[in-house]
Amino acid sequence: MSHPYVPRDLNLVDYAPNLLSQSTILAAYGLASLFVVSLIRVISGKVPKISKTDRWLMCWWAFTGLTHIILEGYFAFSPEFYKDKSGFYLAEVWKEYSKGDSRYAARDAGVVAVEGITAVLEGPASLLSVYAIATGKSYSYILQFAISLGQLYGTAVYFMTSYLEGDNFAASPYYYNLYYIGANASWVVIPSLIAIRCWKKICAAPQLQGQKKNKVR
Amino acid sequence: MSHPYVPRDLNLVDYAPNLLSQSTILAAYGLASLFVVSLIRVISGKVPKISKTDRWLMCWWAFTGLTHIILEGYFAFSPEFYKDKSGFYLAEVWKEYSKGDSRYAARDAGVVAVEGITAVLEGPASLLSVYAIATGKSYSYILQFAISLGQLYGTAVYFMTSYLEGDNFAASPYYYNLYYIGANASWVVIPSLIAIRCWKKICAAPQLQGQKKNKVR
Repeated sequence: MSHPYVPRDLNLVDYAPNLLSQSTILAAYGLASLFVVSLIRVISGKVPKISKTDRWLMCWWAFTGLTHIILEGYFAFSPEFYKDKSGFYLAEVWKEYSKGDSRYAARDAGVVAVEGITAVLEGPASLLSVYAIATGKSYSYILQFAISLGQLYGTAVYFMTSYLEGDNFAASPYYYNLYYIGANASWVVIPSLIAIRCWKKICAAPQLQGQKKNKVR
Repeated sequence: MSHPYVPRDLNLVDYAPNLLSQSTILAAYGLASLFVVSLIRVISGKVPKISKTDRWLMCWWAFTGLTHIILEGYFAFSPEFYKDKSGFYLAEVWKEYSKGDSRYAARDAGVVAVEGITAVLEGPASLLSVYAIATGKSYSYILQFAISLGQLYGTAVYFMTSYLEGDNFAASPYYYNLYYIGANASWVVIPSLIAIRCWKKICAAPQLQGQKKNKVR
């Protein structure tokens, strides 16, 4: 059975084609994400004195954290997802996404390393951010900053390695734009905004501004 | 001309062997580093009310910043360093280091991506840290935290991709331990310590501790 991926000479023994349609796969992710965001919107409304921005940030961290843990976590530890014949949703997701970037099916080391770090470290840390914002923890900004920077670093490595290897991993311009560019754009724009916001909040803290005065060690 | 690198089937057309000896290459880097550290030790002594830790941190950021910009910057933009016949020091460094990790000579995309980010972003940011510490800027901790996290992420990708690809890039256990492990160990231990210190300092800032009380947006 031949596969739909590019480069065409990619060798994927026992590849099994998608059983779910593209619209089913995307709709399931969209609806599940909408459910998570709506749920956190409602729950965050019960947090006393919480700002609008922080309520949206709680939604983002829940959404991105679950995406990292469930979707990317499955990929990181499932080298043979492309052989799945059962129609298992997470395998279907990555078979479909590989049309935009075949390095996923090909198990490219750079992609696996970045996804592994994202799933194992940034995923749980994102969920911790939901809790940290809700409870006003002092580490809330630095935690959000750290995860956002990790997401940006990962995305940078992801795009740069593809570019350096010839940027020829998409089955068509359609999949290139929708999956490779489109699906990753949020993880460039939103972490950048959050990192800038956290940087400003942290720099505005009075003790850090006056740090020269109370240095002891 | 055959090359000294592993895997042995790595194809390096026009490879030119090292002209400088290992001890010359290492001594030059060691002495240059010692000069930079000594210089910053002396200069930092003139900064009023500076702590011992901050003086050492200024030395570290100057050392690591110049390493990123000069050594790693040269590598990132010199795909054909292994062909150099002139004995140019920076080409000699990477020909020698490639004995510990041939992915440098082979122009592995993951290595080039990480080194590019390190040289272009983390290098100048490290030198900015020297200035930020000396002048007690409010962004000093968050800047040091950001760079340290970047160094740790880069080192994680560096080691993980090698592991995933079979960890067979060193010419011998001697080069593996000295270059691949030894030369990178500082960039695991020191950024970890700095990141933890900055995290604690930032969390200890009173405005961030009481952030729940003054949220507006």
